[in-house]
This record gives sequence, structure tokens and C-alpha cells, in this order.
Amino acid sequence: MQTKNLLTDTICALATPPGIGALAVIRLSGNQAIEVANNCFFGKDLTKVDSHTLHFGTLRDEGKIIDEVLLSVFKDGKSFTGENAVEISTHGSPYIQQQVIQLLVKNGAKLAGPGEFTLRAFLNGKMDLSQAEAVADLIASTSASSHQLAMQQMRGGFSNEIQKLRNELIHFASLIELELDFSEEDVEFADRKDLKNLVEKLQATLHQLISSFNYGNVIKTGVPVAIVGEPNVGKSTLLNALLNEEKAIVSSIAGTTRDAIEDEMVIKGINFRFIDTAGIRTTSDEIETIGIKKSFEKINEASVVLLLVDAEIAPSELHTIYQNITVKIENSNKRLVVVVNKVDKTNVEQIKEKFKGIEHVVYLSAKEKTNLDNLKEKLFDFVNAGALANNDVVVTNVRHYEALTKANEALLKVLEGLNSNITGDFLAMDIRQSLYHLGEITGEITTDDLLDNIFTRFCIGK
Amino acid sequence: MQTKNLLTDTICALATPPGIGALAVIRLSGNQAIEVANNCFFGKDLTKVDSHTLHFGTLRDEGKIIDEVLLSVFKDGKSFTGENAVEISTHGSPYIQQQVIQLLVKNGAKLAGPGEFTLRAFLNGKMDLSQAEAVADLIASTSASSHQLAMQQMRGGFSNEIQKLRNELIHFASLIELELDFSEEDVEFADRKDLKNLVEKLQATLHQLISSFNYGNVIKTGVPVAIVGEPNVGKSTLLNALLNEEKAIVSSIAGTTRDAIEDEMVIKGINFRFIDTAGIRTTSDEIETIGIKKSFEKINEASVVLLLVDAEIAPSELHTIYQNITVKIENSNKRLVVVVNKVDKTNVEQIKEKFKGIEHVVYLSAKEKTNLDNLKEKLFDFVNAGALANNDVVVTNVRHYEALTKANEALLKVLEGLNSNITGDFLAMDIRQSLYHLGEITGEITTDDLLDNIFTRFCIGK
Repeated sequence: MQTKNLLTDTICALATPPGIGALAVIRLSGNQAIEVANNCFFGKDLTKVDSHTLHFGTLRDEGKIIDEVLLSVFKDGKSFTGENAVEISTHGSPYIQQQVIQLLVKNGAKLAGPGEFTLRAFLNGKMDLSQAEAVADLIASTSASSHQLAMQQMRGGFSNEIQKLRNELIHFASLIELELDFSEEDVEFADRKDLKNLVEKLQATLHQLISSFNYGNVIKTGVPVAIVGEPNVGKSTLLNALLNEEKAIVSSIAGTTRDAIEDEMVIKGINFRFIDTAGIRTTSDEIETIGIKKSFEKINEASVVLLLVDAEIAPSELHTIYQNITVKIENSNKRLVVVVNKVDKTNVEQIKEKFKGIEHVVYLSAKEKTNLDNLKEKLFDFVNAGALANNDVVVTNVRHYEALTKANEALLKVLEGLNSNITGDFLAMDIRQSLYHLGEITGEITTDDLLDNIFTRFCIGK
Repeated sequence: MQTKNLLTDTICALATPPGIGALAVIRLSGNQAIEVANNCFFGKDLTKVDSHTLHFGTLRDEGKIIDEVLLSVFKDGKSFTGENAVEISTHGSPYIQQQVIQLLVKNGAKLAGPGEFTLRAFLNGKMDLSQAEAVADLIASTSASSHQLAMQQMRGGFSNEIQKLRNELIHFASLIELELDFSEEDVEFADRKDLKNLVEKLQATLHQLISSFNYGNVIKTGVPVAIVGEPNVGKSTLLNALLNEEKAIVSSIAGTTRDAIEDEMVIKGINFRFIDTAGIRTTSDEIETIGIKKSFEKINEASVVLLLVDAEIAPSELHTIYQNITVKIENSNKRLVVVVNKVDKTNVEQIKEKFKGIEHVVYLSAKEKTNLDNLKEKLFDFVNAGALANNDVVVTNVRHYEALTKANEALLKVLEGLNSNITGDFLAMDIRQSLYHLGEITGEITTDDLLDNIFTRFCIGK
């Protein structure tokens, strides 16, 4: 992708999902967008119509009618891309979509690459880089929480936070740089104590953003949950019971469910990914066989571990398996829930004694679908932990996470420098480094490679 | 579907294909369309904007932003449906699509049934029934020829033809009915000789339309082609060679190829369906085994039969198999091509003698992909036969075919009546019958059942 020559072309692409539908929308953007559309449109002279108006007519290829279409016209750069643009609403036949795109190309448009419309929006200053990335996240969002985070980021929440940090640092840097200009005079424009306070304050904010990534990433990609337990303890029944209830919500519009989602479900707006674990053999004398070790490895990938046991489990067996798992996860952030299944066959009050001392226990019957809500509530609470409700800015993007981490490292050097009374020129270098990494996030500092990397992950037409 | 109450609701549906894309469009139509959209849209008061204008803003559910959207506003019934309408262009995430639809429903819209938008267009007089049906055909069109026929029909070509016939008959009928009013006076307002000429003229047109159905149906559903031949004669190689060349065109936009199209291809704009036949055993002493009989049954489904033979086939064997197939198809409209394969291994001039007397012979090498164009040309010519080029009106719809046939039968009775000097009241009855069936096509005569039947075949959102 040659960003330099990008803005002289007029690009086109199918913007709606491929396939058959009532409508399809083909996007056209660039200097010549109006002229290209006008060449093949019969109904009105598009060069003479106002911006933000709709026009019905036919698209023709040398007289032959391709389709009856409705055109949306955007002029004076008042469009998503910041360029002149036309959106062509056609009948939703793949054949027609193809014909219309061919017609536009024949009339001087170029096929758009992935993300090229959003890239143009960025290059034309309609949004910063982190907002552009949020557009892709928004399109890919499949749950209320991932949607909310992407929407917040797209509308500039995250950018504003970064911008604020950066501005404070720039102020800091300018004072230091000023000192360098007067270096012979041994002045200190930047009060070192104040600066130290500022850096510490900035670090606190960076820390908060960096640590939000764990949560943000989990929201974006789904919370990994491992269900472990003996083969006949009801793991599949539990999964199906949860899936049956929740999948209906995800797929209430035909076609929304992505392929090959076997064990993924949205619970109260948060996406959970259930990790398949082979059944653990818990015969007490063979407790640490290879079988259980393999399942234990799966636990490594999980944020939440559900230990599923039969309500009638022998106390000694429960003790052994619970101890094993507790040891396994004790130095991690993983949460453990003991799910006591098949309570329909027993008296819950009588067995509660057995589970005394275990922090999170849920009693349910997967088969009868009783008390599933308790488990869902528990899963939701673990993840939510107040973060979404607080409307805090949350980092969801690995690239942002890395830039923040690097900015933080540079800031740490600044702090060390201040503590060891390092000279201004070294301080300035580290501050500039920190500014650089923060600038990477919003795109104030970019390279073609970086843009390539970001925008080729988009779908074509966006 | 209660057509009577239909037009008081405001309906909404996803109009673009389901799935992930840059954009999705959600359609809203009905008396309250502007108000429903206005309830959840922030950016502008939609009740105060002009028709055919575009507006950027946010959709909110009790303050929570669902998406940044672009609205197309259609007022005073100047829309596809003939009602007030709003088209909402959202980011193409299935989650957002679902949320927006839920939001509209919450604000008073109703989920649209299949074809309900087009049904409203019909009920509001924006198009007749045959045009409405063409909308569905247009969306489903996968080849240039099926696209052209649907487009012609949607733009009224077929309706005009029917309307013309119907008007002539109505004139005829009104004269006869006039006679009935004066029946005591034994007058003849309708000259019987003129009327007979008119009926004969109408019948000729009906015949032409009825016989075009064979062609139209084949264009719409694909021309069935059976390839028969011995197992090692290169049937699969030939299919693959053709498919490799042609499939690329069909699938030059990702997602256009329908699932499970194994042996379907578009050649010069016409869709051909290749029927799988088990290899025929042609050992001369066992020529009429069960194997060949089964393949012969497949031939029944085909419009074109390709008899694939090895260039080195023994003349006697060729004679036997060719005779068998010729006998099989002699009383049908099926076309037979003898495809001589593996010519790369032989001298074409030397073997031509063997195929003398066979009308359609193509010499090719499937393996080397030589002369494939000759075969394609042959297939195309068989189907095309000048009909598409002539811009004749072609019947593609079974329902229309049946109505035309019934109208023709009624007309035949009129002719018989005229020949046997039947009284005017009987003539009038048969004419009314004929008018009724022609009216069914354009929808001047409809029932709820008929409408149900037609529009439930549409996709939702159209």
C-alpha cells in the first residue's frame, strides 16, 4: 500500500456482506467519485445535485441496464472518508454486485484494498488511528461488552485519555528543552520536584490503562473458561444447557452465528469461550495420571476454571481433586468455581457440609436446568468486577498495549533519571521516547508499515 | 399474512445479506416510519427534513449509543414501498444489526415478513404482480441471461405484453356484453368475423409466450446438460477443464459462489447445469446392461446431451452407442453433441471419416484444454437460438406459464363457440375466464392465498 499516492485514486468496493440479500451497497470514494458514478448513471446529473441527497435511476453499461439503483451523494469531502463519495444501493444479487463493480472500474475507479476507506478517513484527518482501529473492532463485535468498548474507543474515549497524557508530557518536555537552550546558564525552568510528581501521576494512569488490557482483551476475544471434571459428571450436559439458553439470543437474526462456534456463548453481554478438556480420571489412587495432567494444561489457558463434581462425590475424592487444582492455580489470577451437579438426585442441604470452606460453590442440575442462573451470575461477576459499569477507559488492542508498555518503560527511565539527578538532555531523550510511543497509538507518529499492518486486517469495503 | 391490516403497521428488517461487512442497511417502512426512527435518532429532527436526504447521527437506546449511523429519509410515499420510509446504514456487525432492529421494534415497528416490503409496493400500486415477482428473480439471478430476463420483466416488458392482450380482449368482451343488454333485439355489435380474427391473433401471441417458457425456465434455472460416455473417456477432466475456466468469473467476488455448486457454470452469460451420469459400459456385447439404462434415464432430465467418446473409438462401437442415444432422444427437443476427446493423441484429420454423418461433432482435448471454446460455442448456440438477442418477451415463471395456458384454453373455447355460432352469453363467459387468468399474472385479480404464496418466497428485507 503506497499511502503517498493513495488519495489521488477513486476507489470502489462492495460494502455490505457478500451473498444474496434485498439490497447491496457499493461504495465509491475519491476525487472523481461523482464523475465516475455520473458516467454510468441515468436519471439525473449528479454533478448538479446537493450533497447528502438520494437519487433514483438506472446504471447502464453502454445502454444496457445493469440495475435500478438508489445513489447517496456526498460532496465537499463531507463523507466517511473525507472525500467526495457515492454509495450505490443495488438489488442484492451477487451477479449485479459484480456487474456494478466492473462497470465502475471500467469508468475509472480502482478496486479498494482492505480497510482502504477507513485508511483514507484517517489520512484525511476524519479520525485518529485508535478510532480507525475501533471501527474494525466495532464491526467484529459480537457481544454487548465488546460493542460498548469499541464504540467508546471509536467515539474518542481512549484517544482523549492518551491525548491528555501526551499534552502533559509535552509541557514537561518543552520546559526541559528550554533548559537545554540555556544550558550554559545552569537554570532549571522545570522544577524537578513538580516534574517527579507529574511523572508519577502519569505512570499511575499508564499503569491503570495497561492493567485494563487483561480485561479489555478478554472482553474482545471472549473469557476463556475451562470446565474440568470426570467424564460422567455432566460436562456436556452443562454446556448444552447453557448454550441452549444463550445461543438463541446470539442467533435471533439468521446468519449472525459465526461458523464453528461450538462452545462460545454470550452471558449478560459478555462473551465466554469454553475450553474443551478431556475428562479427568479421579480414582483416588491414580489421581496424578497423564490424563489429569493434560486437562491441567488446558487450565493454563483459562481465566476461570469450573470444577464440575457430582453431588454425591466422596469427601476424600473432592478434597484431593480440589487441592490439586488449587495448587495448580494459586499463583495466577484464575478464579475457581466448584460446580456441584446433579442436585436433583439429592438433598442440597445435606451435602452442603462437604463443600464448607470452598469459596465459590454453585449447586445446580444441568439436566433439569435448575440454578443455571447462579452460575451465569458468578461468571459475569468475575469478569465484570465493576469495570464496565465505571465507564473506565479500557485497552483492548495488543498494539496499544505494547505502545503503552513502552511509553511506561521510557517514563520509568525518566523517573530514575530524576532520582539520580541526571542532566536535562538525557531526561529529554527519554521523554521524547515516551511521547513517541503514545503518539503511535493515535497515529500522530506512523509509518507505512504500521498503516499496512492495521488496515489490511479490515474487511474490503470499510 | 393479513393483507387487509398490512398497511397500517410500520415494518422493519435487515435488508442487506446477513453476516459481517463494512455496512449493513436496515429498512423501515410505514405510516410511522419517520416517527419511529426519530424516537431513537440523535442528530436532527427527522420530521423536519426533506425527502430523499441523508443524515448522520447516533442511534440511542435510552441514552446508550448503539451505533453511529447514516439515515436515508423518504417522505410523501416516494419510496420503494410507496410509504414513508427510512433506510438506516449501520456498521456491519451482526450484533449491531440485531440491536438496531430490537431498538426499532421497541419503538413501535414490527418485524417484516418475507417479501413484505415488495408486497407493500404492490398493494400501493408501485408495481404489478409480475414486476414484483421479477424483483425476487433479479436478486436470485446468477447469470447475464437470467439477469436480463428478470430486469426486462421488472421494468414492465412482460406486463405490457399481457396488458395489451388483455385490453384487446376487454374491448371484445364489452361489445359482447353490450349485445347481452340488447338480447331481445337480436343485434350483433361484435362482428363475429372480426372477433374470430382477433381471437386468432391473441392466440398466436399467447402461443408464442407459452412456448417461450421452455427457454425462459431453462435460463432461470440453468440448462441441464448430461455428459455420457465410458468411465475413462475423460468426463471429469472435461468438466474440470470447463469449470476451471468459467468458475473464476462466477466467483471473482468473494462469496458469490453458492454452496454445493459442483457442476454448474456460466458460459457466455448462460447458466449450464451438468448432470452427473454414471459411466456407460460400452463393451459391444453388453451394450444394453443396467448401467447404460441408468445413464439413459439421466438423459431424460437433460436439454443437451454430450456424448463423450475417445478419439480412438472403434467405428462399430461408435455406431452402436450413437444409434442407441439417437433413438432415445429422437422424439424430444434434446440436442446431441458428440464430443471427441483426446485428440492430442491422434491426427484429427485422419479420424474425421469415422464421424461423418453426425450433425454436431466437437474435437477437443480436455486434458490439454484445446478447443474447449468450440464446445462452449455449441452449447451457447443451442440455447440462445436468437431469442435473447431479439429482445422478445420471455416467460420465466411457472405461475405465469400456467395462467397463460389457462387463458389460452379459455380462448380456444371462445374460438370453438364462434365456429359453432354459440350465443353471446356463453362467449362472454369464456372471454371473462380468459381475462381472469391474464389478470392473475399482473395481479389485477388476486387472492390473499396467491399473495402469500408469492411473497413468502422472498427474502426478508425485500
